[in-house]
Amino acid sequence: MKYGKKIVALAGGVGGAKLADGLAQCLEPDELAIIVNTGDDLEHLGLSISPDLDTVCYTLAELANPDSGWGRDQESWRTLEEIKKLQGPDWFAIGDLDLATHLERTRRLREGQTLSEITAHFCRRWGIHVPIFPMSDTPVRTYVHCQDGRCLAFQEYFVKYHFEPQIRSIEFENMKNAVVPEKALTALKNADFVLFCPSNPFVSIDPIIQIEAVGSIIAQKKVIAVSPLIGGEALKGPAAKMFHELGMKPGSSAVADHYRAILDLFVLDHKDEAQIALIEGWGIICKALDIFMPDRPARKRLAGQILKILDEQT
Amino acid sequence: MKYGKKIVALAGGVGGAKLADGLAQCLEPDELAIIVNTGDDLEHLGLSISPDLDTVCYTLAELANPDSGWGRDQESWRTLEEIKKLQGPDWFAIGDLDLATHLERTRRLREGQTLSEITAHFCRRWGIHVPIFPMSDTPVRTYVHCQDGRCLAFQEYFVKYHFEPQIRSIEFENMKNAVVPEKALTALKNADFVLFCPSNPFVSIDPIIQIEAVGSIIAQKKVIAVSPLIGGEALKGPAAKMFHELGMKPGSSAVADHYRAILDLFVLDHKDEAQIALIEGWGIICKALDIFMPDRPARKRLAGQILKILDEQT
Repeated sequence: MKYGKKIVALAGGVGGAKLADGLAQCLEPDELAIIVNTGDDLEHLGLSISPDLDTVCYTLAELANPDSGWGRDQESWRTLEEIKKLQGPDWFAIGDLDLATHLERTRRLREGQTLSEITAHFCRRWGIHVPIFPMSDTPVRTYVHCQDGRCLAFQEYFVKYHFEPQIRSIEFENMKNAVVPEKALTALKNADFVLFCPSNPFVSIDPIIQIEAVGSIIAQKKVIAVSPLIGGEALKGPAAKMFHELGMKPGSSAVADHYRAILDLFVLDHKDEAQIALIEGWGIICKALDIFMPDRPARKRLAGQILKILDEQT
Repeated sequence: MKYGKKIVALAGGVGGAKLADGLAQCLEPDELAIIVNTGDDLEHLGLSISPDLDTVCYTLAELANPDSGWGRDQESWRTLEEIKKLQGPDWFAIGDLDLATHLERTRRLREGQTLSEITAHFCRRWGIHVPIFPMSDTPVRTYVHCQDGRCLAFQEYFVKYHFEPQIRSIEFENMKNAVVPEKALTALKNADFVLFCPSNPFVSIDPIIQIEAVGSIIAQKKVIAVSPLIGGEALKGPAAKMFHELGMKPGSSAVADHYRAILDLFVLDHKDEAQIALIEGWGIICKALDIFMPDRPARKRLAGQILKILDEQT
């Protein structure tokens, strides 16, 4: 059944992928487009790896590891084990199935295809009908400046050092040279709503919306964000820890505050209902739902509830 | 037990690897060095692949697939299957274990290590004590000119087209820029005997000995070749077919004839004993042995018999 309005969802890693999947379960392919953070991308073992893009694609294709949320279901680790024996770098976990994605992506990039062309091809092969776009066809790279003076590429910070270093600030390299895929810009322009999935604001959503071509369109749009925090804690990853280290008390209201200038509507968990008044005081409509998505039906349920709320706003 | 003389073996693919392994079983590590053809190397899927080098190393490390002779034992094909689903190139079979070798080799090459340094490292990790050298640290590439006018990179001819095209000639690209590893040249200079393993003369041994730095040393050495043909047929690969297409009757004597200018001693199979008189007529000592190596003990047996013959010559 047609929803009748067009949504563009911005997503980062596991949490964002789950809501994107929920939306894909509720909407027709021409009513939804997903733009994914590529600031976390890395070159590793000579391979061009796009962790967030893969997480979103694997999730929508029902190929993702249901326990971890990232990587492939039914994965094996034979190549990585051998690389370890040869004393190669093994800190970034690449399974045998996942490896095919990186090898073939890298091969096609070298052939001259763009990341968005390759992603579209992979989506066709994986049976994904919703358009999924990388935020940029050129490399934009997230760096974490640590309080100890180190500057770490995001995956080093995140995977190699288990996001243990305390952060001072975050920087997006080559953001000014970002090339947003034309079709992603068109989808944004045609969108009735832009939805920030429950992803890390600093390293998943910010890299997308700080691209000028994206930000300038979003400024004209109705923007909805779903909190990535429940009870002041991230379900996964360093979001809450980052709020602390950047001098803010982690919580849903801090997320809403972060997006304040562009936010029209905010969805938080029932557990955080006490923060609604504060957020609505900023002129942002705020709704409480059960935003925890432990399984596929829960993703659809949450997406459906959000779409219903959006429908009521218009 | 020390043999007391130094041997350098030149080897290509599966047959060569088997005799190299036999020699390694008979000799102390400081009595043997193996120089391996790299004309068959290719760039595929962004990976630097050295099929002959890997076959020799896997064989000596007892990691090789005992049925095919190439690739890894206990291999799986999960990555390749996924690449196939993404419509990537799947004509060159890379298993999951084998893939680690290519990924780590490629990574180290990009870091600036030489192919011989990488090979030495891999050999240490794989428990190989005999020094194994690529014939060149720079790329030399074998091309097959076909009678239909096509010019094919060796692995395309060999794997993609199953050596079906009829050949007109063989060319070694960048042979003049070959950089033979210093330690390989030293081993050659110190060798009492240079042994051509039962490998394809045209595409396994010729690329090595046509490198001037190698050929000029070999010209001063006692050279022994073991026939890669039994009863006019190759146990594996296109050697016999190539003799035909290049206008020669395939047979052990044709192999000896090919090496005639530099050959001191030739070993052929008992089945080809009738050709001994012809070959000895060229001033080449010729011995018949059972050169078929169906298992590991057979490799050691043949190597031992050859070493005994060499010992009798001095």
